[in-house]
Amino acid sequence: VIALDANGADQGPSVVAEGARRSGLPVLLFGPAPELTGAGELAEVVDAPAAITAADEPARAARSRPDASIVQAARAVGDGRAEALVSAGATGAALAASLFHVRRTRGVSRPAIAALLPVPGRPTLLLDAGANVEVRPEHLVQFALMGAAFMRAVHGVERPRVALLSVGEEEAKGTPDVVDAHARLAELEPGDALEFAGNVEGHEVPAGAVDVVVCDGFTGNVALKVMEGTAKTVVGAVRGAMRSSTLASVGGLLARGRLGGLRRELDPNAIGGAVLLGLRRPVVIAHGGSSEDGIANAVRLARRAVEESMVERTADALAAAGALRSGSVDSVES
Amino acid sequence: VIALDANGADQGPSVVAEGARRSGLPVLLFGPAPELTGAGELAEVVDAPAAITAADEPARAARSRPDASIVQAARAVGDGRAEALVSAGATGAALAASLFHVRRTRGVSRPAIAALLPVPGRPTLLLDAGANVEVRPEHLVQFALMGAAFMRAVHGVERPRVALLSVGEEEAKGTPDVVDAHARLAELEPGDALEFAGNVEGHEVPAGAVDVVVCDGFTGNVALKVMEGTAKTVVGAVRGAMRSSTLASVGGLLARGRLGGLRRELDPNAIGGAVLLGLRRPVVIAHGGSSEDGIANAVRLARRAVEESMVERTADALAAAGALRSGSVDSVES
Repeated sequence: VIALDANGADQGPSVVAEGARRSGLPVLLFGPAPELTGAGELAEVVDAPAAITAADEPARAARSRPDASIVQAARAVGDGRAEALVSAGATGAALAASLFHVRRTRGVSRPAIAALLPVPGRPTLLLDAGANVEVRPEHLVQFALMGAAFMRAVHGVERPRVALLSVGEEEAKGTPDVVDAHARLAELEPGDALEFAGNVEGHEVPAGAVDVVVCDGFTGNVALKVMEGTAKTVVGAVRGAMRSSTLASVGGLLARGRLGGLRRELDPNAIGGAVLLGLRRPVVIAHGGSSEDGIANAVRLARRAVEESMVERTADALAAAGALRSGSVDSVES
Repeated sequence: VIALDANGADQGPSVVAEGARRSGLPVLLFGPAPELTGAGELAEVVDAPAAITAADEPARAARSRPDASIVQAARAVGDGRAEALVSAGATGAALAASLFHVRRTRGVSRPAIAALLPVPGRPTLLLDAGANVEVRPEHLVQFALMGAAFMRAVHGVERPRVALLSVGEEEAKGTPDVVDAHARLAELEPGDALEFAGNVEGHEVPAGAVDVVVCDGFTGNVALKVMEGTAKTVVGAVRGAMRSSTLASVGGLLARGRLGGLRRELDPNAIGGAVLLGLRRPVVIAHGGSSEDGIANAVRLARRAVEESMVERTADALAAAGALRSGSVDSVES
């Protein structure tokens, strides 16, 4: 069973309910019951009208409002009533509620948001896409191993190529923390867990140069959103160019079928959502603007993460590489 | 007269020479004389075959190799033989040579690379695009004022809207340094120098939401290159979709004229290059892959910066806002 928060999606709870139905999977659905009547027979609805929004301070709200739907959903995963969590609401609230109730994998310092970029031909995982605005080098090393384990477990990539995002390919390029992380990753003996490909620059991310791109959550969030915004601007400009003369417009009509295929390939709804790595159960953060099918795909992604033992395989990969935090070295909880 | 370094461009010195000729402006051209015969009558060629490449450590190379073309060109600007510098070679070398010989504007802590993004409809200046991988909040404030002064002086934007790049619109979102810079900019009384628009997120950058986007050089470099890479990937996918069936292909042929127009609008060569702000003379960093016309536009951009008194107006804007470093507060040279 997947716990699903129906609050916070841009298009409202009823779209989330319809997405639950379309997934064809059993869910435990938390939200305003009167709006969730379309959730289908496989859904068990728990009336939880209270929502935490992006305007709330996430950690404080998740602590002080146990009745909020995202907190109830996370608690259902924490106490074993559900196996994974899906939310299309505020990312900060989902992260905070997950930290409190799903909890971190033992030895993981910082969970990270891992977003699968719709790069044509070679889907690329970017992490951290926004959970931690500041990180230390050892966190970047954990992100590399967690990202590689995810691509192996869920996407079947045999020996994922993993790179650090930086401002030049040379090992000395970047902030001191990135340079330090580069040295640690170069020394790592990851066996078959991953192949360290050094640094990549920004233009290589959408080119599908590697399977996993690792960075701090500030840079990753900016990079992800710049990609989304640029794709939208360019596609909009192409459409505008097509419509701007009769001749081009005829061309546009003829080409439209193929462009529609491309649009589907670049559609974030096709992927379902980003995954929070480093927690004891799979947590999927669906795009706030998810359609019904986007929600359905997010639920299916959570299901696949459960079936492929993503959490256990990630923990094994970290342990095998000696990259789990030991209590004595780093005992400060953050 | 503009000092122009002919070494380091991807397409070789002869392309730079031809670009100098096409600019129709007087230049002092430094490079391997035998390859610069096409530079035209307005060019004075100085034989300087030695080049500094991206593989060299910039500061050390700029100091120890006074014969290198970029060092000679920067020195010509420093001692008044030329009014501005243009280079399509290694950015680090151009920056280091400029710091030594063109020198910083008094009171500016860190020069920044300002790149004009080809956003359709509203060209947007992004800085720092890579000069400083780490910055302090007061540097971000100076970047905001320098960027606004550039958009006023060179692009005629009356009261530029300036924003900080962050991971959320709320003032508390971002790294501690970004949050601090936000508070300083909100308290600033810049008069007509700029309008502070708060934070923007990554997807708003290519949407033309503001005139100037301010960030550290690591984030800015990644954002700029992600934009370039994404535009290339999407345009490539559109072309692929057009060609992939006969019907779509006919459509593509009909639409090709308009798409060509769009391609020209998104072409970095049309802009000429990024500008180093915070130095005593204009310095333009042309794209490494510049065509002849790209070089010509870079020379024209440098000329316009001289004619519009970009340097003086930038210094005035910083002084009026009280944002110049005083010797006692911050005397460490970096």
